[in-house]
Amino acid sequence: MREKKLTKNQLHRLPDYLWVLKNLESSGLKTVNSQTLADCLDLNNELVRKDIASISTESGIPNKGRKISQLIADIETILGFNRVSNAVIVGVGSLGTAFLHYKGFEDFGLRIVAGFDNNPYIKGKEVNDKPVYDISELSEELLKKLNANIGIITVPGYAAQVVADALVKAKVQGIWNFAPTKINVPNNVIVSNINLATSLAVLSYELYFKNEKEKSKNG
Amino acid sequence: MREKKLTKNQLHRLPDYLWVLKNLESSGLKTVNSQTLADCLDLNNELVRKDIASISTESGIPNKGRKISQLIADIETILGFNRVSNAVIVGVGSLGTAFLHYKGFEDFGLRIVAGFDNNPYIKGKEVNDKPVYDISELSEELLKKLNANIGIITVPGYAAQVVADALVKAKVQGIWNFAPTKINVPNNVIVSNINLATSLAVLSYELYFKNEKEKSKNG
Repeated sequence: MREKKLTKNQLHRLPDYLWVLKNLESSGLKTVNSQTLADCLDLNNELVRKDIASISTESGIPNKGRKISQLIADIETILGFNRVSNAVIVGVGSLGTAFLHYKGFEDFGLRIVAGFDNNPYIKGKEVNDKPVYDISELSEELLKKLNANIGIITVPGYAAQVVADALVKAKVQGIWNFAPTKINVPNNVIVSNINLATSLAVLSYELYFKNEKEKSKNG
Repeated sequence: MREKKLTKNQLHRLPDYLWVLKNLESSGLKTVNSQTLADCLDLNNELVRKDIASISTESGIPNKGRKISQLIADIETILGFNRVSNAVIVGVGSLGTAFLHYKGFEDFGLRIVAGFDNNPYIKGKEVNDKPVYDISELSEELLKKLNANIGIITVPGYAAQVVADALVKAKVQGIWNFAPTKINVPNNVIVSNINLATSLAVLSYELYFKNEKEKSKNG
């Protein structure tokens, strides 16, 4: 493993690099330099050079750059696409049910193995062959049995903290939070927040601003 | 409408403000000052003061702060939760199907009215009472008929640009892109990217880094 930890911004650029590298590899290229990657992604060369140095496990080849296949392997290792973690999902409502059916996460190393909910019409049943337990059954013991160390939160905002507390008590190592609210957890638990509503709001606001501007121009 | 456009960072803080404001309102408070909001969210007071000034349509009350109900209304207007836009979803695979079933987007002002796919087993059918058209039918005319001005992309990365081009040709105003790749569109089309894989990768990387560090400490 690389000694130095990548920054969040660096991590967020990795999928873009991965995408470009796979395209370049498909075009038949074997090596690439930072300038080419920078051009493909409209980024600053110096920034790309540093990113590539931080993620590479092999040094570059003089006048040629880096081996593309090695860069792809290095990035996939960092992104965890070739490790598999088991996760449980808490909140088997509309989004939680959708995720229990969604196969795409497995490509990125996440296998959802069970759900938890307190709705009497849902708990005790199966969704896509995965058991849905009563939320009161969420425990360290059950997560160990399921070999799951990640909890996904898909409950409404008002319930998110209670669920986070229960997951922490059951000793998850990481939480992927889809609830539209911040959660507080101890430092040793890692949280990644993703807010679909915010992402949508950015789009909605830009559209609204643009249309209002056009209206005031035409009026 | 406010004259000055909010920054992306400001927009991303709005759902947090909204959440805190609704909690404060439930506790019975009528007004709030920036310092209280800053404390609740662990933010800098000066930053919050500026944010609140940018989003407010009413001025504050001396020694009391802002009316909470008005702030909530102002934020919901900006976020578009009280406007409704129709959207079509392109790519009715696992994630697209999930979203056609998901009801949560309507709370945030987005109604998905139809899907598009080229899979012969899917096109021509309905998912959750919503028609799925062949992708070749995607046209300005059909989008007008559906009253849809937003396209959601849920195809694999390699197909994202082709789909984006088709959406631009059909004159959508905005694109919500879930494909794990950048898309190029003309300046007058607004794009909001959301990458589930990246968000998951951040979690996976942090876990991996933490576990490796503990291993090397214990080894």
